[in-house]
This record gives sequence, structure tokens and C-alpha cells, in this order.
Amino acid sequence: MYIRKQRLLTPGPTPLYPPALHAMMASDIHHRTEEFRNVYKSALADLKEVYGTQGDVLCFAASGTGAMDASVSNLFSKGDKVVVCTAGKFGERWAEIAKAYGLDANVLKVEYGEVVTPDRIEAALKAEPGTRGVFIQASETSTGAEHDVKTIAEIVKKTDAIFVVDAITGLGTMPLDIDGWGLDVVIGGSQKAFMIPPGLAFMSVSAKAWKHADKADLPHYYFNLKKEKKSGDGGESSWTPATSLILALGEALKYIKKVGMAHLIENAQLLARATREATGELGLELFAKRPGSSVTAVRAPAGMDSGAIVKGFKERFGAIIANGQGSMKGQIFRMAHLGYFDFADMFGVIAGLEIILRANGHNVELGKGVAAVQGVYEAAKSAPKLAAA
Amino acid sequence: MYIRKQRLLTPGPTPLYPPALHAMMASDIHHRTEEFRNVYKSALADLKEVYGTQGDVLCFAASGTGAMDASVSNLFSKGDKVVVCTAGKFGERWAEIAKAYGLDANVLKVEYGEVVTPDRIEAALKAEPGTRGVFIQASETSTGAEHDVKTIAEIVKKTDAIFVVDAITGLGTMPLDIDGWGLDVVIGGSQKAFMIPPGLAFMSVSAKAWKHADKADLPHYYFNLKKEKKSGDGGESSWTPATSLILALGEALKYIKKVGMAHLIENAQLLARATREATGELGLELFAKRPGSSVTAVRAPAGMDSGAIVKGFKERFGAIIANGQGSMKGQIFRMAHLGYFDFADMFGVIAGLEIILRANGHNVELGKGVAAVQGVYEAAKSAPKLAAA
Repeated sequence: MYIRKQRLLTPGPTPLYPPALHAMMASDIHHRTEEFRNVYKSALADLKEVYGTQGDVLCFAASGTGAMDASVSNLFSKGDKVVVCTAGKFGERWAEIAKAYGLDANVLKVEYGEVVTPDRIEAALKAEPGTRGVFIQASETSTGAEHDVKTIAEIVKKTDAIFVVDAITGLGTMPLDIDGWGLDVVIGGSQKAFMIPPGLAFMSVSAKAWKHADKADLPHYYFNLKKEKKSGDGGESSWTPATSLILALGEALKYIKKVGMAHLIENAQLLARATREATGELGLELFAKRPGSSVTAVRAPAGMDSGAIVKGFKERFGAIIANGQGSMKGQIFRMAHLGYFDFADMFGVIAGLEIILRANGHNVELGKGVAAVQGVYEAAKSAPKLAAA
Repeated sequence: MYIRKQRLLTPGPTPLYPPALHAMMASDIHHRTEEFRNVYKSALADLKEVYGTQGDVLCFAASGTGAMDASVSNLFSKGDKVVVCTAGKFGERWAEIAKAYGLDANVLKVEYGEVVTPDRIEAALKAEPGTRGVFIQASETSTGAEHDVKTIAEIVKKTDAIFVVDAITGLGTMPLDIDGWGLDVVIGGSQKAFMIPPGLAFMSVSAKAWKHADKADLPHYYFNLKKEKKSGDGGESSWTPATSLILALGEALKYIKKVGMAHLIENAQLLARATREATGELGLELFAKRPGSSVTAVRAPAGMDSGAIVKGFKERFGAIIANGQGSMKGQIFRMAHLGYFDFADMFGVIAGLEIILRANGHNVELGKGVAAVQGVYEAAKSAPKLAAA
């Protein structure tokens, strides 16, 4: 074998920001000390700034699913009527959680690759004025599709329902004006655009959501939003925090603030556009009708199993990209752009893809897809920003 | 600004092997313990295996220049006649060390970009049969040129002179059959193909060189080959070792053994060939007449300062490549291949170079150079090896 660097190019875990990893080495710290309280307070303040909300932002030692669970168990009561939008594997997770807690869910389901349109949600809310919540994925990671969160928020805002947004891969890849649009709960995860390993879940909570919490009667213990809010105000977490990850988060948030959340989003959008143009040049089709910028899902050429492409990346270039999930496995492959990804990564990914396609019988001209990525780089209106340190 | 990952693409320090870096975290170890002796012994044994010699291989807490110094101060006497080959900044260093220790040096100097030819060395040795040593760079990092070490070794072998080879960027980028060719001293450095940070120098010593040591009278203390050999045999270093670097070295050597030294060399050779073909496609000229595989030195296009290319890599892509040194500064730029470099790195480097050349007025077709790199990848006779884990 020759040298093949390990490259983690999946939509989560994503490439890690090295100084954040290095910060984890300072984990010989006790969490009930002034020293750690300062670290935690500062991370929470930066997290709130990066979320861009005046509301509360909570942090849990959990994966993103934990915060999804918490949003149901803390803000609803058994039998509550809710609308669940399901456009992929993660939308299905909302439906499962709603079922687990006994909510009365109206599941708006679409085919993989499609999105739930605002008018459908509007109709569902009109048909059931007592609806207490609307659940959605900002970005459906399994298909690469992006929901029209802004338009849907305008609809939900006018009702008594709260809008609960799984933005685990949406944060940092698409604009999400939490206060301006009226997003009541926005859920994030550390292993996505936050550039650190898995283990932390984030959650913003609006005033409207807190009112829901007051009336909610579902049982919960570990995930206790009110308790967590109170603990966080004192610079602590309710239970033992994942100190190493908090140290990493603090470092990553400093970097994200330096880059600027708007630029981080633009970065993902540019890389996603570059990937769409490159794969188009290579004669490939996108899977999502309304593709987002966290991950680009691409159909394998006719007659080729997408697993061969995933395997090619791993074996030839030490790179991990994602296959399709569930029934999409073998049909699509997914290339991520969220968080710590740059153009030089994308040059390599597309150059590698060209080689892999050829090796599997899909003839493409070498360098043609890469040229498309280079073209997007050159054409970026804000390209001069790339030159500023 | 957008995301720009820091990429260290210089011919030293080179990209670091992550597990080796992680191993440095175990530095809370005392160096005079059985535990560390085992680490040290194992690293020395692996180093010897990777060097590929039955002779001795020593390790110093020093930069490569320290081992160059040690080879003179331990193996020669004041006034000894030596031949010093000088084909760049590092050849000049041999001349400076020889002068510092009062050797009677016949300096065979060539223009930057050229190499000292075997016949010239043969003539010098014939003209002065009392010559005690010949000094050379296997790979002259400042110009990217590679000496014909094998042919020169055949010539030196027949004389009483020892052949002292600075292989700091030669090891792992070109075949060096130490015992078969008769290389008496071969010097290496940790921050090159060994994939770890600077701070360790390595040195093989042949039986012929040890005989020189017996007769040498130059003063030395820290760099004491005989003492170091004896210490090493006992699993210790003569003075306090750089423990963190030894831990890293141990990890990197495991990886190098797994890859195989022959494949590591072939890897560098393939990437160097790809770089030569790509830059040729982009209408650029190589600087070295006899280019090696540690680093490829390329002339900037007419009228363009190579500093603009170096700056472009840094500002646009967060990547550090090397400018020319001394009078070559502004004329050439150098892209490295030694150690922990792979094809995906090279796709990105050449794609970035294309963009930078265009931004500086040298019009090239996007993707053309990348296609040349991809072509070398595809054409590699041993390409299947790339697929084997």
C-alpha cells in the first residue's frame, strides 16, 4: 500500500478542527470548580451568539437524538396533536419519538428526496387548529434535501403550535433566523458544523416554547429543560458535563466566531454548489429535488452500486463518504460540506470521484469535475474574502 | 473569510502522522525506567529496520544539522583532506562544518539546480589519494536535485575515504542500499519522511566509519557516537532523550513498517512524477536538472515572483509551500512529497496552483494539471497496491 490519509468526509462526524481536539487534552479539570464554570459559561455564551438568538440555548451531554427526545418530553403532554414532517430517515425519527411519548401525530410523509411543502403543513394546521407542535428537519441528512424553514415558520407562527426544528445539519449550512422567523426549538449536535466529536446536543428554546413547557405533563428526568436552563445560568450543567467536549466546543466556537456564522454558511453553500456543478459535469444526477448545503446526495450512475463508490473512496483514498441509508443504500452516495470543509478538500474529493467512476466503468474526462469546482471558487462573488486571513 | 484548513506542505516540517502526534500525549514517563527503555529499544530496532542496514543506527536529540556536525567531529581529525560536494544550501552547510572543524576540504561546487557528477568526484579522489571522506546530499532540498548516490558510492568504496551522506530528505524518497552500496554514514531527521515534528537526528555508522572514529582526534562531547552506541545498546540515550518525540517516532515507525519502506519511496516517486507532469502541462519549467522525489522545485512563470505563488497558497488555501532559499528566492517554489503525503493532497495542491497561476496572470486551463496527476495515479503499474489496505 501507499500513503492514504484518513479523511472523514461524512455529514457527521465531520472533519475535526485540530485546536479543538488539542483543547480536549486539558480535561484534567473538575466540573464543579470556578475554573470549569468559566469555561462552561463562556461556551454557552458563544453558543448563543453563534445560534443568533436572544432566547435560551441549552447544552446536553447527549447525541442530537437526545435533544429531539427532550423537546417532546419537556414541551408536550400525552395525546397532544402534532404535525410531523417526514422526508427521510431523520423525519421518521420524529415520528418514532412522537409515538414513544403517545402524541397524536399527523405524519406528513413524502418520498425520499422530496420535501414537505409549506402548503401541506398549512392545510394540516387549518384542519386541526388544536395542533400543539410542528416537527421538521431543516436539512434532511439522509437525502440531502432542505426544507423551506422560513416559509413554514411564518405559517406555524400564526398558530398555537410551536415549531420544533431538527437543525442538526442545518445549523451552519443554511440561514436560520431563530428570533426573526420564529423558530421555537432549534436542535444542534456537536459532531456537525461545530467541528468537534459527537456527544453534545444543543437546543434553543423560545418564550412560546417555555409556555408549552409549563403545561406539559410528559415524564422526563435527565432531559429537564427548566433545570438545565437554571444550571446553565449559574455556569453549570445539571448533571456531570462531558468536560472534554465542552473544552473542544469552546475552542471551536472561538474559531466559528472568527470565521463568522454567515461565512461558515456561505462556505458550505459554495462547496455544495461546487459539488452540484461538478457532479453535473460528470453526468450524475442529484437525489434531492431541493438540495441543501450540508450534504449533497448523488445518484450512482445506472447499473453501478453506490457502495462501489463509497468503497473506492475508502480503499483508494482513505476517505469516508456516506452511502445511502435504508432503502437508499446502493442507490446514492453523499458528500458532505458542513463545518470544517474547504475548497482544497473538495478538489481532492472530486478528483478522487472521477477516478473511481472510471474504475467502475462510468467514463468521464479527468479533471472536468475538478474544473467545475475551481470555477465556483473563482466565480464566488466574495472570493476576495478567501484571501483575507 | 471562509474555512481554510492549515496544510503543511513543505519539505520539512512535513505533514504529521496523527497517531504519532497522539502518542506524544503519553510523555509523562521517566526516561530512566524500564518502561521507557522498552519504548526506546523498540524505536531504535524499528529505525534500523527502516534504514535497512546491519550496521549501527544512532539517534540524537538534535536537528539534522547536529548529526552532520557529529559525523565530522567524531570521524575526522584536524587537517584531514575531504571532498565536499556542494549543489545548494545544504551542500554549503557541509562546507561550513568542514571549515569550522579545520578539515582540508576540496569543495566541488555546482550551480544551483545542477548536481555534482560521479566523474568529478572520482577525479578528485584520484588527485588526492589521502582523502579521508566524501560529503554529499542524497537529495538537495533547496533545489530539488538528487545525486547519483549509488554510482558515487561505488567510487568512494574503493578508497580509504568514508562516504558521508546527508539523506535528511533522501531517506524515504529514494532507494538507499546502505550496506549494499557502501554508504558509511547516512543522516536522517525526524521532521522529514519520518512524519513527526523536528527534534531528532538519526545516523547510521558503518564498520569502515567506526575505524575512522578510532583515529579521529577532533573534540566533541554531546555528540559522541561511541557513547551513544553503547547507551543505545542498553536501551538508553546518553543524555536526556526527547521523550515525546521518541514516543511519536515509535508510532510513526510502526506505520512506516506497515506501509513498507519500498512503498513509502514509491509513493514519493509517484507524487513527484505526478507533480512534474502536472507542472509541465501548466507550461512550467523544473528547476533541477536531475529532479528527486522529496521535493519538486519549479520555476515561476516569466515575470512572476514565486513569492506570489507561495502567498497565494497561504492566503487562498491555508497551505504552506516553500519558496526558494537564498538567491533562488522569488525564482522558484517547492512542493514536497516526502513522508505523509498522498494523492488526494496532490490533487488539491495542483488544483490550487492552477487557480493561483491564473490569478497572477499565467493563463492555464482549469483541471489540466489535476488530470495529469490523476493520469499518473491511474497509470501507476502498482495501482492495485493502492487498493489494498
